[in-house]
Amino acid sequence: MSAASPTPLIQPIRMLDVIAKKRSGEELSAPEIRFVVHGYTTGEIPDYQAAAWLMAAFLRGLSRVEAAALTDSMLRSGSVLDLSALPGMKIDKHSTGGVGDKTSLILAPLAAAGGLVVPMISGRGLGHTGGTLDKLESIPGFNVNLSLARFQNVLKTCACAMVGQTEEIAPADRKFYALRDVTGTVESPTLICASIMSKKLAEGLDGLVLDVKTGSGAFMKTEQEAVYLAELMVETGTRLGKKMVALITDMDQPLGNLVGNSLEVQECISVLRGSGPEDLRELSIELGAWMFVLGGAVNDIEPGKKLAVKLIESGSALERFRLMVRLQGGDEKVIDDPKVLPRAREKLSITSTRTGFIARIQCEQIGKACVILGGGREKKEDSVDPAVGIELHKKVGDSVLAGEPICTLYYNSELRAAQAKLLIEHSYHIAETAPPLRRPLIHKIIQPEAPN
Amino acid sequence: MSAASPTPLIQPIRMLDVIAKKRSGEELSAPEIRFVVHGYTTGEIPDYQAAAWLMAAFLRGLSRVEAAALTDSMLRSGSVLDLSALPGMKIDKHSTGGVGDKTSLILAPLAAAGGLVVPMISGRGLGHTGGTLDKLESIPGFNVNLSLARFQNVLKTCACAMVGQTEEIAPADRKFYALRDVTGTVESPTLICASIMSKKLAEGLDGLVLDVKTGSGAFMKTEQEAVYLAELMVETGTRLGKKMVALITDMDQPLGNLVGNSLEVQECISVLRGSGPEDLRELSIELGAWMFVLGGAVNDIEPGKKLAVKLIESGSALERFRLMVRLQGGDEKVIDDPKVLPRAREKLSITSTRTGFIARIQCEQIGKACVILGGGREKKEDSVDPAVGIELHKKVGDSVLAGEPICTLYYNSELRAAQAKLLIEHSYHIAETAPPLRRPLIHKIIQPEAPN
Repeated sequence: MSAASPTPLIQPIRMLDVIAKKRSGEELSAPEIRFVVHGYTTGEIPDYQAAAWLMAAFLRGLSRVEAAALTDSMLRSGSVLDLSALPGMKIDKHSTGGVGDKTSLILAPLAAAGGLVVPMISGRGLGHTGGTLDKLESIPGFNVNLSLARFQNVLKTCACAMVGQTEEIAPADRKFYALRDVTGTVESPTLICASIMSKKLAEGLDGLVLDVKTGSGAFMKTEQEAVYLAELMVETGTRLGKKMVALITDMDQPLGNLVGNSLEVQECISVLRGSGPEDLRELSIELGAWMFVLGGAVNDIEPGKKLAVKLIESGSALERFRLMVRLQGGDEKVIDDPKVLPRAREKLSITSTRTGFIARIQCEQIGKACVILGGGREKKEDSVDPAVGIELHKKVGDSVLAGEPICTLYYNSELRAAQAKLLIEHSYHIAETAPPLRRPLIHKIIQPEAPN
Repeated sequence: MSAASPTPLIQPIRMLDVIAKKRSGEELSAPEIRFVVHGYTTGEIPDYQAAAWLMAAFLRGLSRVEAAALTDSMLRSGSVLDLSALPGMKIDKHSTGGVGDKTSLILAPLAAAGGLVVPMISGRGLGHTGGTLDKLESIPGFNVNLSLARFQNVLKTCACAMVGQTEEIAPADRKFYALRDVTGTVESPTLICASIMSKKLAEGLDGLVLDVKTGSGAFMKTEQEAVYLAELMVETGTRLGKKMVALITDMDQPLGNLVGNSLEVQECISVLRGSGPEDLRELSIELGAWMFVLGGAVNDIEPGKKLAVKLIESGSALERFRLMVRLQGGDEKVIDDPKVLPRAREKLSITSTRTGFIARIQCEQIGKACVILGGGREKKEDSVDPAVGIELHKKVGDSVLAGEPICTLYYNSELRAAQAKLLIEHSYHIAETAPPLRRPLIHKIIQPEAPN
């Protein structure tokens, strides 16, 4: 009781009040969100209070304004790269992940060759999806664990560099993610948005192209979920002053024809050489074009695509890839001779039992088959076999004869191969007639709303 | 991947799945709830997972079936008294707390004198409400910290005993309550119900009378909230095989005329002597009558009231109180001479500034004034001054003249008295005309629904 003492003008923020406010569905202020993020990162706020807050945020939701404040606080929880000394717009691409989704390896050198700076910090594969770092590490000697200083040095010489998460970047996200993982609060669009965007924007970007996957091999199974998350991320980035675009793209079947770490590096080199499968090439050119649009290298998507094609056909994108591999300690012979990559000891064809058309591929199951072969991780601690993987000879809409191969497995363990084969056989659906419509590769483009 | 190994018939319960299930609004099974309560009590489930679960339960709610399972698991988390060796039905009363709410001290000896066994485990005051243990401890020598063995010995001789919570009783509730207190999950009716009922039913009861307070001095400010909680507790107790009734009773002004520990003991002795203020006497007789109904001593409320009045007028209730005080180490002279109780050094009258009628008393403020005087606790660690308190000379509906005393403060600190005086002056609302209707003392009786 303090009838005598005047109430201080600025009341300290208390975690218990912030929890209760979110629990009641009220919007938190930016200082309250900063308090939560800073307090939890420094350890002043205990796990149990952060857990209660996360569940309240999960169930009550966070507004667009709160999402931006959360992202901003998380990205400022550690180092934010300052790349202002480097000429060129800093533009990155992020994908929500899928099976055979390997465009990063193509886009980083492609965009760098076109005058952009691409400071790409990526993750590892988990569950049915692959990870950029695992793919890069299949190149002998390639080092993804650069210090921030060395990372910036590579960028200076090459304008692109591809590394893993460091301790300095967005430590709040690491702490929050670990807690979400054990408290049932992973699958919240806003928390996912803040997690992705805080890490990406800590790269010191001017703009970001998002590739939000949808379909049976994506985390967002429905287009509605994908669009919701994409709009949220585009708005969040825009609120934080970044140029943003999101592409909703198809992940109802693997992207390209190769799934598995070495195999995917090989396929990326093919695309950089001007060949490779059509879907992977098309998506890479489209995403590259958007990177050029955001970076101001072109003023529209069509000239952007032309630029991307030119950079591939002239060989500059491939040469930039070669330079990056060399600067990051990798064996650059990989560019000319894929045999430098680890190769599986055995292979095995899976053939169709009937004649018809490929109607559907359970894409997540193909990803899981690759994990079973050893090419991915069930748990974070698992190690990855870079050599194994799957080659798809048939994709949705293709005709197939009974006895004709649909896939080839590259493997190092008979037992694993037998399990993967079983899964893949159940993943291919073959119909008598051709499927009526092919899903487009690019479903939708989401750009920031024009300011009112 | 385990295509080869068969799925075990009984899957182990995992906390992460239980959190996600409740987060999605699904009903948890009794084994799942037992898993949470047992796991958290033993420490196998960490605080942060329990916190996420509590927030999900808070926001998604728990069904009546889940509430019963939660209560049952919590009451079984420690010792459950086995009083089967004692003749007589074991019936207790629990109040949700208020200001001047002191019926426990009257009811335990009254019901025991009527042939029931009353194994009463009570709490301390916190916030604006008083606590039974604090009141009892104002009697010199009275020991509320009996071991369970000594508690049962007192019950054997006296049929009533009044003690504090022990480590052995419902340890799950203590652990969950401490966590709820710091995670913004206190104010959930189901969690409140499970907390109250688990502790009470661990007394090994046959039946329980609930006094659920509503009004400006209660935790449930509206009748709707009070009824909701009362119905929930009655149904929970009934599901667990107990005889149950709940009275929704008025707490829009203090009960009786005295607020403060020694003062309330004194007022209880008056009622046990057959005098005392009418509201306190009426409510005690009504609650006592319901205890007799649940215990089967009478078959209806009217004969129950007659029995209660008889036990007071014959002096048996008072003699039972004397015996209990003696058996629990207290100075039994208190029964005949209130001067045995601690007395405040100073007193002070608060007078009305105008002539009219008492229209309203902000009851919670009266409780807070008593806390300011030192008679209650702001924080759990605070100690209590048993001597201080407030005597109300005027209650709602009474006429008052300008200059006439409305209250007397009994105090030991001038500074505290001045603060309490200010608060009380602002708590009394005096109108020119008498308030049209007096709120009834007993608003509603809630009994179990008849089985279909």
